Amino acid sequence: MAISSPPLFLFPESSPMEAPPPPTILTQDELKKIAAYKAVEFVESGMVLGLGTGSTAKHAVDRIAELLHQGKLTNIVGVPTSKKTQEQAISLGIPLSDLDKHPILDLAIDGADEVDPYLNLVKGRGGSLLREKMVESACKKFIVIVDQTKLVKNLGGTGDAVPVEVVPFCWKFTETRLQRLFEEKFEVGCVAKLRVCGKNEEPFVTDNMNYIVDLFFEKEIGDLEAASDEILRLAGVVEHGMFLNMATTVIVAGGAGRSINMVDANMSALRERIENIRTKERLQRCYRVEQAGWCYSSGYDYTLKRDAKLSESLNFMVLVCKTFGLTIATSSSLLCILSVVVYLRFLGQ
Amino acid sequence: MAISSPPLFLFPESSPMEAPPPPTILTQDELKKIAAYKAVEFVESGMVLGLGTGSTAKHAVDRIAELLHQGKLTNIVGVPTSKKTQEQAISLGIPLSDLDKHPILDLAIDGADEVDPYLNLVKGRGGSLLREKMVESACKKFIVIVDQTKLVKNLGGTGDAVPVEVVPFCWKFTETRLQRLFEEKFEVGCVAKLRVCGKNEEPFVTDNMNYIVDLFFEKEIGDLEAASDEILRLAGVVEHGMFLNMATTVIVAGGAGRSINMVDANMSALRERIENIRTKERLQRCYRVEQAGWCYSSGYDYTLKRDAKLSESLNFMVLVCKTFGLTIATSSSLLCILSVVVYLRFLGQ
Repeated sequence: MAISSPPLFLFPESSPMEAPPPPTILTQDELKKIAAYKAVEFVESGMVLGLGTGSTAKHAVDRIAELLHQGKLTNIVGVPTSKKTQEQAISLGIPLSDLDKHPILDLAIDGADEVDPYLNLVKGRGGSLLREKMVESACKKFIVIVDQTKLVKNLGGTGDAVPVEVVPFCWKFTETRLQRLFEEKFEVGCVAKLRVCGKNEEPFVTDNMNYIVDLFFEKEIGDLEAASDEILRLAGVVEHGMFLNMATTVIVAGGAGRSINMVDANMSALRERIENIRTKERLQRCYRVEQAGWCYSSGYDYTLKRDAKLSESLNFMVLVCKTFGLTIATSSSLLCILSVVVYLRFLGQ
Repeated sequence: MAISSPPLFLFPESSPMEAPPPPTILTQDELKKIAAYKAVEFVESGMVLGLGTGSTAKHAVDRIAELLHQGKLTNIVGVPTSKKTQEQAISLGIPLSDLDKHPILDLAIDGADEVDPYLNLVKGRGGSLLREKMVESACKKFIVIVDQTKLVKNLGGTGDAVPVEVVPFCWKFTETRLQRLFEEKFEVGCVAKLRVCGKNEEPFVTDNMNYIVDLFFEKEIGDLEAASDEILRLAGVVEHGMFLNMATTVIVAGGAGRSINMVDANMSALRERIENIRTKERLQRCYRVEQAGWCYSSGYDYTLKRDAKLSESLNFMVLVCKTFGLTIATSSSLLCILSVVVYLRFLGQ
């Protein structure tokens, strides 16, 4: 029996109150928009906001501007993560600032190229990884918005690039060292390739006047923290596109069923706890749960336009959390643990 | 009884063959020149050389050019560590290349702002730390040349700057984070300050178009490896001026006695071994040895113009090492260990 998610979070495909909407295939861009709009619900008046870069984050910036013009949001200050986003925000009339004036931000919303089950990210295929990392490491909360195609088991596991920003001086030398680092030290096949653009294949130049070397891995990297440190230790490297332990929430929009899944960062801690359950039988059950993608889809799971009741209960939960000084992440984790315990103890027999 | 160095390496102030030279006070620049010339003795025809930057390294580049023009060196290729050194080398007619074409160098010679007993360095007060680190991390052998004023007990311990190269984007934010890192995580007082130049105090711009933030510490940093990783993990940092475990030999010119001390990197391993000797009495002896600066002055120690015999024996040792496939570092360490054992066992009673 394959278990898709613990019972506490199982919601019927259609509510008993209304008929299910006709199944519609949404485009990837529509899915991105859904995730972006959901994230903007977390924005409150008076916040200092990190404004992400890329096709998904663009929808969030558009939505913030829309709410500002409607008067539903006031007193917002945006900190853009690239020159492109800066131009977009200026054209939309969002008041802007920078990290020098606002070294601590309330919330950042940005897309990602890959998300692993521990909420580690690959970013920077658009080339803005350095400024994104600077801004998003200064945020109290960092919401990542993706469509379901971005979910991966291991970072770099899609065969797509993990970008590294390098100084232009002797970039070829740095490119070779990056490739050798992963071939020899981590023993995973790796091809390092300078990113080029245009007809003449000129090097792609970042906002900081650096180059990008894209790393293509043949196997999973393994210890991401160690890989991160080793990359940064190479003189000539400015920054890399692995964003480890930075996302606090990931919003995933996916499928014809128009579902949105939200995962808080503490889920990874929960996963570890599950893995630490010692009896073999329980481990097997946990494995089934994990196999079925539970690590992505739990937290709270609902279907658009049919989520009125759930929204209410979520809002109530948020209120309770605020009252008792708990974060949403902590409390949702607690709920998840409870649900797993209930499942293993009573329902999984 | 204070012991200045183990007996094997004690040489008389004057040799019985000739009278001692009259004591002359040398200027700091003359001392730098002595160290630089000594280092260039290690250069052989056909080598690919890393050419350092700064007032001490300048003498080495001059000397290499001199030997090239005299025909005593041939087929040399230089890889400069800064635009300034590149200009100097071009003006002197030294053939140049870069890391892209020569990713492995035979030898680099460069100065340093500070050298600790483990041969860790602070570099970059001249602003060329990034290219220096790129070049010098690609060398089979890296000889550091300093006058004795550069020897410190702990890096940053002189109260002078440990430089960090940062991207210009939101440098103030990075400056603040660097200061807080050391104040809060390492709990050593730290003042981080953007390096400026000129009348208008414009930011100093490196060869890579970045800025420099100088860190001034109030206490010793402690775990340098951890500090290095933490600095590099800050998005916005490009590189820092701590060169850890990179120097293979340090040549120190110092004092009116015109002495040159050479220390190989494996000395630090030796020091650790000494520190691991367990009996209290021996520890006290080792401490006395250490106190007297033994860690700097051992290896091989000789006085200019009175080193004929020693040179002979050193050359013989090098020959023996090459014959038996040992490196100079390994064999000098073995000799040092032997001397310490002899001293502790038979002479230190």
